[in-house]
Amino acid sequence: MNKKEASTPIDIRQVKITDPFWGAVQETVRREVLPYQWEALNDRVPGAEPSFCMHNFRAAARLMERKTQPGFTEPGYTFRGFQTLPEDKEHPEADKFYGFVFQDSDFYKWVEAAAYSLSNHPDPELEGTVDGAIEIICAAQQESGYLDTYYILNGMDGAFTNLKDHHELYCLGHLIESAVAYYQATGKDKLLRAACRYADYVCQCFGPEEGKCKGYPGHEIAEMALVRLYEATGQEKYLDLSRFFLDQRGTSPNYFLEEEKRRAQKEGRPVPKDDSSHYAYYQAHKPVREQEEAVGHAVRAGYLYSGMADMSRLTGDKELLAACKRLWDNIVKKKLYITGGIGGTAVGEAFSYPYDLPNDTAYSETCAAISLAFFARRMLEISPSSEYADVMELSMYNTVVAGMALDGKSFFYVNPLEVSPAACKEDTRLEHVKTVRQKWFGCACCPPNIARIVSSAAAYAFTEREETLFTHLYMGSEITKEVEGIKLRLILESSIPWEGRAAMTVHTDAPAKCTLAFRLPGWCRAPAVTGPEGMERVEKEGYVYFTGIWRDGDRVELSLPMEVRLNAANPRVREDMGRVAVTRGPICYCMEQADNGENLHLLRLDPGAVNKAAISQIEICGQKMTSLELEGFRREQPEENAPLYAEYATPQESQACLKFIPYYAWANRGEGEMSVWVRI
Amino acid sequence: MNKKEASTPIDIRQVKITDPFWGAVQETVRREVLPYQWEALNDRVPGAEPSFCMHNFRAAARLMERKTQPGFTEPGYTFRGFQTLPEDKEHPEADKFYGFVFQDSDFYKWVEAAAYSLSNHPDPELEGTVDGAIEIICAAQQESGYLDTYYILNGMDGAFTNLKDHHELYCLGHLIESAVAYYQATGKDKLLRAACRYADYVCQCFGPEEGKCKGYPGHEIAEMALVRLYEATGQEKYLDLSRFFLDQRGTSPNYFLEEEKRRAQKEGRPVPKDDSSHYAYYQAHKPVREQEEAVGHAVRAGYLYSGMADMSRLTGDKELLAACKRLWDNIVKKKLYITGGIGGTAVGEAFSYPYDLPNDTAYSETCAAISLAFFARRMLEISPSSEYADVMELSMYNTVVAGMALDGKSFFYVNPLEVSPAACKEDTRLEHVKTVRQKWFGCACCPPNIARIVSSAAAYAFTEREETLFTHLYMGSEITKEVEGIKLRLILESSIPWEGRAAMTVHTDAPAKCTLAFRLPGWCRAPAVTGPEGMERVEKEGYVYFTGIWRDGDRVELSLPMEVRLNAANPRVREDMGRVAVTRGPICYCMEQADNGENLHLLRLDPGAVNKAAISQIEICGQKMTSLELEGFRREQPEENAPLYAEYATPQESQACLKFIPYYAWANRGEGEMSVWVRI
Repeated sequence: MNKKEASTPIDIRQVKITDPFWGAVQETVRREVLPYQWEALNDRVPGAEPSFCMHNFRAAARLMERKTQPGFTEPGYTFRGFQTLPEDKEHPEADKFYGFVFQDSDFYKWVEAAAYSLSNHPDPELEGTVDGAIEIICAAQQESGYLDTYYILNGMDGAFTNLKDHHELYCLGHLIESAVAYYQATGKDKLLRAACRYADYVCQCFGPEEGKCKGYPGHEIAEMALVRLYEATGQEKYLDLSRFFLDQRGTSPNYFLEEEKRRAQKEGRPVPKDDSSHYAYYQAHKPVREQEEAVGHAVRAGYLYSGMADMSRLTGDKELLAACKRLWDNIVKKKLYITGGIGGTAVGEAFSYPYDLPNDTAYSETCAAISLAFFARRMLEISPSSEYADVMELSMYNTVVAGMALDGKSFFYVNPLEVSPAACKEDTRLEHVKTVRQKWFGCACCPPNIARIVSSAAAYAFTEREETLFTHLYMGSEITKEVEGIKLRLILESSIPWEGRAAMTVHTDAPAKCTLAFRLPGWCRAPAVTGPEGMERVEKEGYVYFTGIWRDGDRVELSLPMEVRLNAANPRVREDMGRVAVTRGPICYCMEQADNGENLHLLRLDPGAVNKAAISQIEICGQKMTSLELEGFRREQPEENAPLYAEYATPQESQACLKFIPYYAWANRGEGEMSVWVRI
Repeated sequence: MNKKEASTPIDIRQVKITDPFWGAVQETVRREVLPYQWEALNDRVPGAEPSFCMHNFRAAARLMERKTQPGFTEPGYTFRGFQTLPEDKEHPEADKFYGFVFQDSDFYKWVEAAAYSLSNHPDPELEGTVDGAIEIICAAQQESGYLDTYYILNGMDGAFTNLKDHHELYCLGHLIESAVAYYQATGKDKLLRAACRYADYVCQCFGPEEGKCKGYPGHEIAEMALVRLYEATGQEKYLDLSRFFLDQRGTSPNYFLEEEKRRAQKEGRPVPKDDSSHYAYYQAHKPVREQEEAVGHAVRAGYLYSGMADMSRLTGDKELLAACKRLWDNIVKKKLYITGGIGGTAVGEAFSYPYDLPNDTAYSETCAAISLAFFARRMLEISPSSEYADVMELSMYNTVVAGMALDGKSFFYVNPLEVSPAACKEDTRLEHVKTVRQKWFGCACCPPNIARIVSSAAAYAFTEREETLFTHLYMGSEITKEVEGIKLRLILESSIPWEGRAAMTVHTDAPAKCTLAFRLPGWCRAPAVTGPEGMERVEKEGYVYFTGIWRDGDRVELSLPMEVRLNAANPRVREDMGRVAVTRGPICYCMEQADNGENLHLLRLDPGAVNKAAISQIEICGQKMTSLELEGFRREQPEENAPLYAEYATPQESQACLKFIPYYAWANRGEGEMSVWVRI
């Protein structure tokens, strides 16, 4: 790593998003998602699965008042996905923990999203709600600093005995992320102090020193969160703990295996065999610096790689950076959906083997796409290169946004690239695929995760060094940046993702020397960028840099023509043989039954038609977006009782107009078929 | 039903198979499979999963000697597919039941196959082994006649309390099938008397009379077996019991549900909800006469429909026949693989929804294809129509035979139409798919089932009425048939399935009046059949009938030209869009890696090439068969590190010669890719 190359995300308080696309998504989150999620966290949404998140904090807080602790007994799991649920859902017992073992994190994610929203939209009522909730959370914290309601309520003697599957360190990570965000947004440090106390306690318990626990998180995030806490507080111990977690992961003897052996012995179960490969799900099958293939649970992987990138940025650890680059390459070249999603298989919500990218059984979890954007931004922070921003853009404009309905009222956990509602009803292999977005999930990781990335979108669009501002995503904004004491106001106008024009205008009271850098998107064949006369202009790694003295009214204009493009997959992707996907600019398009009728698989695109594609506007749920019409053919459906097999004859086809809408907007007009890939 | 139209399978003792294709398969079964299976049933095959089948009978026989019975306690299931296994596999406890609850049936299937084999190949050693085993089986039988080692060993008070999942009536069915077959083959009735005693006991326990149990088999087969027992013994009560089982099935209140409620109450579990639809797996979701769609476990379904057909043949029950025809149509038009396999999904080893015929995740159990042949023959018995024989032939020449290695030493349970060994290793959705045949299975239904259908193949090729002989399958044979006291010897010569010629020559000491009927196969576009001059010739339902006085040397010649044919699936089958399957005569062909290299999905067939197809011979495992070579193209594989997505361009292809071998012979040359469907 070259420290001179590194940049940091812009403080979102410096940015006012004016972008029609992202402005609308942020407004939806602010108006719909944040209030709704608060209700959900408090089990007040009729018909939705209860969360029990705030219930657990309240129960733990009451327990703290009484200063008594139960002895640890693992609560039984119910059938529905490892939750502990009350016998009567309407009347949970006041002292008991319910829901998933990681339920605390949902509150933290919500606070983090709320903090980002408050950064730009002061809202005393929302802030009051958060403050009140923080009181409860802090009241639940142990004197030691420990803070995880699962063990507080079920008995502290079990704490840190199942790092592999119980998410105490994951909850620590989310607590830190929310606490730093809320502190930065409001200046209030109560939650930050709680986060530091918990982190301090973990520092006491974990580390290379003799007698300390040699474990690490089963679900990663603490790694990158601790880096963030270090950057917010300057306390080296947090960086050290993060490094310890990274260094320790996957080393031999495998900690998770040792831990399992201990638990098995205690519980009289057969002791598991020595086989680290079982821990690939947790990316703990080998030391992180030796990992070459993105494997296991995709969200965990994305979070781990983000933490590795953070650490290499701060410490210049070249081996770690090389591992990040290898893993990045592996994802982008072998395991990435054209929608920016990752994690092809529902089994373990995980990366599948190289080039296994099924469309109908795809998992492509919303959170996994978010984690890929995290990883991409961190790689960008280390060294700006459009290869990272291209993928970040792909994830954010497609799968991340697809995770939420246009009205913000329902969500996808799984983001398939091909859906037949009839098949989803009948085929248990598609059990995980929903054809309409759900209101809330017992395992509600995705909705608050969408809220936090959407609310902080500016930090993905722009990063900065002292005298340089990078524009990675063309998100219309008003940005303030101080350079040598001079305050610049930079107005970015953008018609992306619908048209290929953008421009940045500088407003300043005094001339200022700095660099404005703009990404040349990979989807644009012939970008044309013009800056003010006399500026030094350099092109490097997919960015054009203008350096010089900027004066009021100086303007950079970008013409980034976006053609309708037919994409073919590498023929190693068996599922996509003989098919193409339609993109235009950063947007991946799909066909829906609402526009094209049933049996989308009978449609075929005329590859020559791409030059005659009709580009028009469509309004879905009150939101305007671009739709595309391309010429093609529709295979005739035989009569109802036609034989199953017949001698091959050239198929009877009629001319058809195939209509495509942005993938992120699918399933907003009722249930129906959808397909990203279309036969050619 | 028109009783005049009905025919019955030929007694296989009247037929000597001389056919190179079936002769070889039968020899393999006789020389390899039967001796091997006897070893397997006795747990003497090193490295194979123990069966415990004979162990259980011996244990039950010892218990009978002692005349003591344990009280029923359900043995715990181990993780591996609901088997009860000894802690130390080498040393099972002498008094305990092990293996699957239906383990007894494996012995019966073996005896049945042995009986058919003995019919044509007297073998005193084999017969002695069977006789000895029958002694053990009979010694295990209760005084009441009850005979199921699971309950005999685990406590008789549990008997008939779980008809849904415990296979007592299934074992009864297989006992009957084996007993009748062994009696017919050898004239020995010890096992037949045991079967009658068990059937008599079931007659006492089950029936419409007050106080009797109103249940029916969870796994069907007793229905058709009881018809067979009725036909062998003339005892009406067996026919009545079969009809009771059929009439009772799926009626309201649902017996399986009531039974589950009783068990739940007894065991203090939550009582299941009133919902008959749960029982579709068992074809018990509605009365059999009302069933319209083939659903649930495919083998059970095939056995049930066979029993329904038997009953309608004997009783003229039109409603039952109409249901059989509906279900037949549903299978053939919506749920049949081009290989003659049925049951597309591994979930429940079951029929999937209409037109869901996945190639790679296919289940297509060998036993299910066998059950389809059972059903087809019974429909043929009712009324000869080539639509039934075409499908019977498809199943028998393709999936049934594919279930066994050419050397008879290993078996497939699951018969996929597309295999990538790399995918099977990595993808848990393909866990059920094996890329090489297995030596034996804990659940060893398929190998002995293959043995019994193969050994009795003649009964599928020929059925008869008093003065008519039907040739359904062109299986080279010497057949004897008595007509009005005159003994005809009929020699069928056939080059099918490799070439389209067959001829039947009549040898007789005296002229005899009768009808010889020959099927016109659906795969033949222009059949030409010539009989002796002066014969009455009628064509009907895909059969040509020659009626008249036959004299020595009279001969019917059939020219059944078989072209290489490219088949397209109904476009409702999404998996097969843009692909074809190659057939020639009754044989379905496939591509293997051994002939075509890796990445079969990169190959594409030139549809015009079908007329230039090269037909040659290939020898696999010492067996000669036809292979086909067709012109096509191979898509070029991009370099190792090529991008995952790129702008669409006409794919680079080179000319290629695609080689096809019979599907039944795949996976006999090591592990590799295989595909039945190829892109066009």
